Amino acid sequence: MKVIFDTDPGIDDAMALLYLSKLPEIELLGITTVVGNADIATTTRNALFLRERFHIAAPVIQGAGQTLDGKVKPEPVIVHGHNGLGDIDIPAVDETGLQPGTASQFIIDTLRAHPGEVTIIAVGRMTNLALALRQDKAIAGLTKQVVIMGGAFGYEGRSGNITPAAEANIYGDPVAADEVFTAEWPVVVVGLDVTHDIILTEDYLAALSAEAGENGELLRQMSDHYARFYKDVMGLAGVVGHDLLAVTYALRPDWFETRSGPICVVCDGIAAGQTIQMPAARKGGHPDWANRPPHLICTAVNADAVLRHYRETVAG
Amino acid sequence: MKVIFDTDPGIDDAMALLYLSKLPEIELLGITTVVGNADIATTTRNALFLRERFHIAAPVIQGAGQTLDGKVKPEPVIVHGHNGLGDIDIPAVDETGLQPGTASQFIIDTLRAHPGEVTIIAVGRMTNLALALRQDKAIAGLTKQVVIMGGAFGYEGRSGNITPAAEANIYGDPVAADEVFTAEWPVVVVGLDVTHDIILTEDYLAALSAEAGENGELLRQMSDHYARFYKDVMGLAGVVGHDLLAVTYALRPDWFETRSGPICVVCDGIAAGQTIQMPAARKGGHPDWANRPPHLICTAVNADAVLRHYRETVAG
Repeated sequence: MKVIFDTDPGIDDAMALLYLSKLPEIELLGITTVVGNADIATTTRNALFLRERFHIAAPVIQGAGQTLDGKVKPEPVIVHGHNGLGDIDIPAVDETGLQPGTASQFIIDTLRAHPGEVTIIAVGRMTNLALALRQDKAIAGLTKQVVIMGGAFGYEGRSGNITPAAEANIYGDPVAADEVFTAEWPVVVVGLDVTHDIILTEDYLAALSAEAGENGELLRQMSDHYARFYKDVMGLAGVVGHDLLAVTYALRPDWFETRSGPICVVCDGIAAGQTIQMPAARKGGHPDWANRPPHLICTAVNADAVLRHYRETVAG
Repeated sequence: MKVIFDTDPGIDDAMALLYLSKLPEIELLGITTVVGNADIATTTRNALFLRERFHIAAPVIQGAGQTLDGKVKPEPVIVHGHNGLGDIDIPAVDETGLQPGTASQFIIDTLRAHPGEVTIIAVGRMTNLALALRQDKAIAGLTKQVVIMGGAFGYEGRSGNITPAAEANIYGDPVAADEVFTAEWPVVVVGLDVTHDIILTEDYLAALSAEAGENGELLRQMSDHYARFYKDVMGLAGVVGHDLLAVTYALRPDWFETRSGPICVVCDGIAAGQTIQMPAARKGGHPDWANRPPHLICTAVNADAVLRHYRETVAG
């Protein structure tokens, strides 16, 4: 499976990237970066650092530093730390891993080079994907699948983390997300409805550290900061592996329950950043949704299978 | 328990009113009407008809014929029929049951006459309640509890019936609903998250008809029209007893699971009419919600207990 990984590392982005690097089924073609968990210079630096640490051959391509909604949001320092990776020490990185050009152009070129073969796994704001669509609308028809981590649809009462209505990646650029959902490519949305089932407890992280060598230990170190946020703010004993779950979906969709239907994103007002799906089973249809293609949202997941698979994979 | 029933009959309103009339625990003080399932003349006529049929002593008081958002919505003829009660024959009604004055003034006067004792069960648009608050803000502190049927919070994927985001009673007057949620009275929201568990099947309605005499048969007749809507549009084998569940909550809150937190209503845009709660367990808070009082939403219900209780009550 050929994959472009669009990311804003980010601690759970690092978890997802380690996962990708260890999966024999995955051929990683490129790592595209976007503003989000930190500014674009920082997320790109972090991607280069992780690429080196995880011995990844694919290049890093820098993407959007500004979002399409024209709004600058505060960085989530409380979640990911000042350096985006839980304030661990990050040495100078190997800049040779950085490929010139923009993320959106890389996405276009890669999809055109491998028509129908490439899966995009996007775990940050949707800005690079929307820019690629604006530049070359036809790429939608050339994409095998887009799996995004983002959004929240209220299952299990999970309706937002940035606001009571909105999840961070969608809130971060609702205009871009709405354009991604308007496009005629197959999108699967891995949102808070399922990612909050993927809790990496202290014991689990200790086991990763013991079994997965220095990279497992790196994840555990990053997670110290992340765990303080989840404990103090969310009242959770462990950290949530949001982004790694998008990788799991790409490989093992059979571990998920999904619902099909067109999706709109609220771009303004108190619900800005909210994702709203009209279930395909609904008769009649509503004009704001009716002319959009159906996409899948994940509504349930076999969390035990995911956590076992992740641990076995990164320790392998 | 002293109760004001605010309603827009409506087939499930009729189910709720029969329930109220049969419950020895309930002292019904008045039936206030509002535009919704039909225009205000029709819902008031229907309330008078049902009052007579169910031998209810409490008066009917006519309420708002226009909503506070200034928008006129099409009547839900497909759901409740042209006459609001499934197009059954409705004879001329006894107008002596109609008490002069407005619903909002009746609500104020009744709350002031019985401070701390009155529960408002509101199963239509929130217009009368909001008008009462505008006229006399202090009534919030005099109300025992407000139980409303309305809204949807995404539990079990239930996020709207009028639009993918909005439930009908809230969509019908989002401005009024938002004012009701802003007030410092204890509100419990019985929304689609739980009402869609209350399915009255054909067999159940036949049993009501057999056990509950002519009023059971009346409900069964009304439900023919309602059942066609649920079958053709929603794909359900039965009808949903939305409004009766608000009555059940007032009596048996122990049959429900709830979540506490302030609630905002989206008043414009594609999500207009959506109810969004910030869970009280959430740390930090968000400015749009932070200055509002917490209210309860229902997230799960013991549907078997409810259906058994309803049947036993109306047959009793």
